[in-house]
Amino acid sequence: MDLTATCRTLSEACTAAARLLPVKYGNAVLSGVLLEAGAAGLTLSGNDHERAVRLHCAATTHTDGAALVPAAALAETVRMLDAPQVRLVVEGSRLAVRVPGARFALPLLDRDLHPGAVTPPEKVAEADGSLLAHALRSVAGTASRDETLPVFTGVRLRLDGGRLELVASDRYRMAVASLPVLSGSGPLDALVPATLLSELGKQASGPVGLHADRNRFALSWSGNVASTAVLDGGFLSAEAIPTGQVDTVLELNAGALAAAVRRVGFFADGLRALTLEVGDNQVRLASTHDQTGEAEEFVKADVSGGRTSPSFQAKYLLDALQPFADRDIRLEFQPGKRATVLREVTPGEVALKYLLMPIVSR
Amino acid sequence: MDLTATCRTLSEACTAAARLLPVKYGNAVLSGVLLEAGAAGLTLSGNDHERAVRLHCAATTHTDGAALVPAAALAETVRMLDAPQVRLVVEGSRLAVRVPGARFALPLLDRDLHPGAVTPPEKVAEADGSLLAHALRSVAGTASRDETLPVFTGVRLRLDGGRLELVASDRYRMAVASLPVLSGSGPLDALVPATLLSELGKQASGPVGLHADRNRFALSWSGNVASTAVLDGGFLSAEAIPTGQVDTVLELNAGALAAAVRRVGFFADGLRALTLEVGDNQVRLASTHDQTGEAEEFVKADVSGGRTSPSFQAKYLLDALQPFADRDIRLEFQPGKRATVLREVTPGEVALKYLLMPIVSR
Repeated sequence: MDLTATCRTLSEACTAAARLLPVKYGNAVLSGVLLEAGAAGLTLSGNDHERAVRLHCAATTHTDGAALVPAAALAETVRMLDAPQVRLVVEGSRLAVRVPGARFALPLLDRDLHPGAVTPPEKVAEADGSLLAHALRSVAGTASRDETLPVFTGVRLRLDGGRLELVASDRYRMAVASLPVLSGSGPLDALVPATLLSELGKQASGPVGLHADRNRFALSWSGNVASTAVLDGGFLSAEAIPTGQVDTVLELNAGALAAAVRRVGFFADGLRALTLEVGDNQVRLASTHDQTGEAEEFVKADVSGGRTSPSFQAKYLLDALQPFADRDIRLEFQPGKRATVLREVTPGEVALKYLLMPIVSR
Repeated sequence: MDLTATCRTLSEACTAAARLLPVKYGNAVLSGVLLEAGAAGLTLSGNDHERAVRLHCAATTHTDGAALVPAAALAETVRMLDAPQVRLVVEGSRLAVRVPGARFALPLLDRDLHPGAVTPPEKVAEADGSLLAHALRSVAGTASRDETLPVFTGVRLRLDGGRLELVASDRYRMAVASLPVLSGSGPLDALVPATLLSELGKQASGPVGLHADRNRFALSWSGNVASTAVLDGGFLSAEAIPTGQVDTVLELNAGALAAAVRRVGFFADGLRALTLEVGDNQVRLASTHDQTGEAEEFVKADVSGGRTSPSFQAKYLLDALQPFADRDIRLEFQPGKRATVLREVTPGEVALKYLLMPIVSR
C-alpha cells in the first residue's frame, strides 16, 4: 500500500472514525483501523463486533493495498502534522507515515484476526441530515447513561406515516422529536444506542440513508456508513404516558424561563427543587438558601385553565427547556404526580415534545 | 447603601475580585467582599490577611454606605443577570440585588470582624502593563506549585539599573525575563507568590505601579490595587547557575522544534526523554514506543561549536520553548549535567532567558 493524502482530510477521517468507534481496551486488533487504498481513494474501516464504521477519504493511490494499524495512534500522529500532504507506505511490518523531514512508523496489526468491514442492512428510508441532526441533538441527551438498564440508553427510531419519530427516556423524563423523511416507508422500528446517534448527529450531513433489519441499524451519508447492533425492547412510547388530565396551560419564552431557573436555582437548597407558581399572567419562582440568601423572580406567561403549580428539580427543568432554546413554548400541567408536557407553540419542521415528571404538583 | 450599576461592569469587577482573592474555606467573613458606595462610584475590597484587593467600579450612588457580602455569591448572581442595569440596596440584614421582575437577597456579613481595606506600600517604580504581562506570562508558569517549599512558588522581582528582572524556578528549570521601567528606581527586591502574579498579568493594564516595602508587595493600575505578603528568601538568581562551559550553540525556530518534540514525544516510552542529536545543520529527534511504533524527525538549525547532544523530558522542553512561541532562538549546550540556556536570537523589549537542566548530555 502506498498513497498520498492531504493531512487535513486524512486527519478529519481518522478523528471521525475514532469518535464513532471508541477504543476497546484489551483488544488491540478490534481497536485497529483497516486502511484500504484503491483507485477510488482510501477507505477507513473499523469493527468491534458491535459497532462498525466505513469512511471514505480522498487520496491518490500509488500502489493498491491494505493495512491494519492502531486507530488512536494513527489519528494522533496525523493530527499533529503540520505539512500540507502526507504519504502512507507499508514498509515491512510497519506503516510509515512520511512528511518532509520526518518519518513515523506504526506497527501493522494482524488482519486475519480482524472481523473486516460489515455490510449494512437494506436502506429503508432517507432523511435530511440537518433535520435529523437537530432531532438527535434534542433527544439523544435524554437517554440514560446507566448501562445496567440498556433499554434506557437507546433512542427509539420509528417510521410512521411518512414521518420519522425519535423517542428517548431515562424513566424520569422523555423527549420526542419527529421529522419528515425524504423517501422510503420502512419498515423501521429500532432501539439504537444514544451515544452513537449523538456522534452521528454531529457527523452525518446531506441526504442520510436509514438502514435497518431485525438485528442491525445503520446510517449512510456521502460514501460513509456507520452501523450498530440494536438494543432489545422497543417499548419506549410517548403514548404510554397519560396526558389527559391537563388543567393548566402556559405559554412563555423557553429562554427567559431557563435563565430565571438558573438564577433562582442558585439560591435553592439541597435537592434544588423549584416550584413554578402559576399566577394570572406570570410564573413566580422563589427559593431560599442558608448561606446564599433568597431569590424571587417573575416570568411573563399567558396562562389559561387552572393554577396547578408543579415543582421540578432545577437541573431536569433546564434539560427539558434546553432543546427549545429561545423559542415560545407551551407548558401543559396536570394535577398530582403526572407528567408535564412541553412543546413549541409553533412547531418547526422538526416537531419537539418533552415530558417531564414533577416532584409534586400543588 | 443604594446604587445603580451596569450589570456587565459590576460583573467584571466582582469576577476580578474573586479571581485575585480566592475563597478561604471556613471563614465566611474573610471570603466576603466589602462594598463601599460614594460620590466616586463603588469600591470592592477584599482582605484575607495575606492578600488584599481594592477595585473600582463605575456606579451611580443614590445613598452612601457600605456592606460586606459573600464574594462568590455576589459574583455568581450578578454574572447570571441579563438585564442592562442592576440596583444594589441594603434592606435590613440583606443586600438586595434588584433587576426588573426579580430580587435576590444576600446576607450581610459582620463588618466589625473584617480586617478592612489595606493601604499598599510606597510606589517604587512604574512599568508598562502589557510588557509586564508578557514577562509574567513567560515566567510565572515556571514557579513550583508545591506549597511545601514556598520559596519556589514565588517570582523574584528585582529592579536593577532601570530594568525590572523577573526570575522563577522550580529547581529543575529557571525562567528569567527583564523589561525597561517607565519611572522609579526602587529599591525593589521581593519574592511574590506566582499564582497572584499570573492573575495580575491578566488583569493589570496601562501604566502599572510597583509598590514594595519589607513585608508587602502591591501592583496598582487605573484606580485598582492588589497587595500581598511577600515570601521569605530571595536567593533565586540566574547568576548562580554556571553557564561558562558552553561548547555547542544552535539557532533554530522555537515553534518548529516544539512541534517536532510534540510529534516525536508521542512515540517516546516511559520517561518521555528525548535527545536533541546535533548534526551539521540540523537536530535529529528519534524515539521508539512498544505499542505506538517509531518516530524520527529532523529540524533545521544553524550549528556552531561542538556536538554536545543533551536529553530532556519532552514536557519540560515544551514548557521551556513555549514562551518563545514562533520566534528564532539560540540554544546553548554545556557538556555533562549542566544547564542548557535558551534565549531569543533578537531580544524584544522584554528579554527572555530560560535555563533547563538536561537529564544527561552526551
